[in-house]
Amino acid sequence: AAIEVDPVCGIATVEPGALNVDVKTAAAAHGLWYPQDPASFRMSSIGGNVATNAGGLCCVKYGVTVDYVLGLEVVLADGTLVKLGGRTFKDVAGLPLVKLFVGSEGTLGVVTRVHLRLVPMPPPASTMVATFPTLRSAGDAVVAIMGRMRPSMLEMMNQVIINAVEDHQAMGLDRDAAVLLLGQSDSPGDVRSQEVALMTELCLAAGAKEAFATDDPQEGEQFVEVRRTAGSAIAARGSLLPEDIAVPIDRLPELLENIARIAVEHKVEIPLAAHAGDGNAHPAVIYDASDPVMCANAYAAFDALLRAAIACGGTITGEHGVGRMKRHMLPEQLGPDVLALNLRIKAAFDPAGTLNPGVMF
Amino acid sequence: AAIEVDPVCGIATVEPGALNVDVKTAAAAHGLWYPQDPASFRMSSIGGNVATNAGGLCCVKYGVTVDYVLGLEVVLADGTLVKLGGRTFKDVAGLPLVKLFVGSEGTLGVVTRVHLRLVPMPPPASTMVATFPTLRSAGDAVVAIMGRMRPSMLEMMNQVIINAVEDHQAMGLDRDAAVLLLGQSDSPGDVRSQEVALMTELCLAAGAKEAFATDDPQEGEQFVEVRRTAGSAIAARGSLLPEDIAVPIDRLPELLENIARIAVEHKVEIPLAAHAGDGNAHPAVIYDASDPVMCANAYAAFDALLRAAIACGGTITGEHGVGRMKRHMLPEQLGPDVLALNLRIKAAFDPAGTLNPGVMF
Repeated sequence: AAIEVDPVCGIATVEPGALNVDVKTAAAAHGLWYPQDPASFRMSSIGGNVATNAGGLCCVKYGVTVDYVLGLEVVLADGTLVKLGGRTFKDVAGLPLVKLFVGSEGTLGVVTRVHLRLVPMPPPASTMVATFPTLRSAGDAVVAIMGRMRPSMLEMMNQVIINAVEDHQAMGLDRDAAVLLLGQSDSPGDVRSQEVALMTELCLAAGAKEAFATDDPQEGEQFVEVRRTAGSAIAARGSLLPEDIAVPIDRLPELLENIARIAVEHKVEIPLAAHAGDGNAHPAVIYDASDPVMCANAYAAFDALLRAAIACGGTITGEHGVGRMKRHMLPEQLGPDVLALNLRIKAAFDPAGTLNPGVMF
Repeated sequence: AAIEVDPVCGIATVEPGALNVDVKTAAAAHGLWYPQDPASFRMSSIGGNVATNAGGLCCVKYGVTVDYVLGLEVVLADGTLVKLGGRTFKDVAGLPLVKLFVGSEGTLGVVTRVHLRLVPMPPPASTMVATFPTLRSAGDAVVAIMGRMRPSMLEMMNQVIINAVEDHQAMGLDRDAAVLLLGQSDSPGDVRSQEVALMTELCLAAGAKEAFATDDPQEGEQFVEVRRTAGSAIAARGSLLPEDIAVPIDRLPELLENIARIAVEHKVEIPLAAHAGDGNAHPAVIYDASDPVMCANAYAAFDALLRAAIACGGTITGEHGVGRMKRHMLPEQLGPDVLALNLRIKAAFDPAGTLNPGVMF
């Protein structure tokens, strides 16, 4: 799929089939950066990123897909091609249709072209790694860090993931830790060192077992790679129901404890990776699809996790979208009035319901 | 109007009548910052900022209102109160209704409460001031700066404004300069000094008459205050038709020359302030409302400026909204298909057309 970079304006114009990683590479050739960074960036397309308003590892500082979409070309349900927005950084003429399409999961039209804003390449990052004896203490550390600064990455992995990664490829991770927290700062100059030092300090104050920091980007990247490969490391362990719940940041410690409780109550294993700084958790329910009892447990746990997020004032999806897997819970989160408003918009764009039927609604 | 700050989550929950400046003050009491910063921040309300998706001086680095709105409470046309989004940083459940309301100018519902994200207070800024002999050379400097870095402010004033400010309060500004460019960097550590030094260098390379930089925040703030008072300095000169056009950044030099040409052709004085780093220009047509010929010239110049922006692939409004003054030109910018899509959404929300009639459409 075509990717054109305009280095003067810092804009990439891409077809939706272009891979996220290829946009990053094309931008980097001009000293520019496309920040939006799902863990799946090597295999996920810009079209998919736009459909779900994808987030990722660095959005705690750099925002999500919608923050980089300046313009879209979209084919509507009746076949009309419309150009929305364009290459201007600020444009409020008419209703904000570009923003409405990003995250609409293909329910309102088919995106055929995307204008993405690029930014100057950031400095290299310093990295902090901390291990915690409990989920609560790790959650407290995240809340403390987010109250003091804006890291460029703040990722969490629970014990199931730590061990799955270590089984997959020995990294010397502490298999006894309940949580591994991975923080980065890409602030310029010496500030990145000071910021990871502050993160380390806040982790130890919250009860971390161990914490260390490094200014070596390559050493840091090894830990980021651990986080990125968490998905494939756990995929080998059975069938998976992946979640994408998010809560207000002060409710994260409570959510983490509820996730652990749900695993025990439903007798399922729940590996957990989280974009912790955003309050966005990816627990996944592992189950044996050939065992009907386990299947039932897994699906019950899946719904319990969604309800736990709603109970914390959060959402059933932070960045993956509703899709087909979570649409049965959308009414429970939105309530009847907001759901009705959604359906009114859907009907205004797609009265016959031909676009992505069964997705979201 | 009520303002509540949650310092743990970094969220301000405000009634729409709250002034932007009061949100900043309430945030600052907790070491937090509400970045969104229209020049009118001392008199503009959050409700107005949300209605227009207001920008301002620091949005070249920190984005516009929509980037800080996590949740809204809105009364719909039929009287239903809906809660959209909330206090979670990432939430893609359902269509992105929060984003649709920000910038909808009261045409879709009445906003009654806003959850705003706050960020850590940035370090003090270093400041660069440069004067240019021509609009073109200043525009070239802006393009060069934006291709290399992301300043925290990059503002432009033309000769009419320089002289109006100097008449209003003597600041020692160069009355002969065609343009004054004001740049800031609030990057941490020494980097702010390096960044304003780079801006200075790029200005001189583009043909600046003079350029100087200071790390003294108070000295810098004096120049920012000049920019903020530009509006009142020119208000004394007659009736005003204020514009808010924006173009892709590489077209800014061309737009600036067209603005000067339009002033000559229509025999009107056009003071120009611009959020130059965003390609967002605020020319204003000054006229004597008691003189029918001058009135006609002024309105013709107003439309010519809007058309000049559209001709550059830009927009008739970057941050002020369409309102009543520019709605006659909205069809020319959007074209019939996109306008029809706008009207379908308006009809889905407000079938009887009771909300803000005459605004935008």
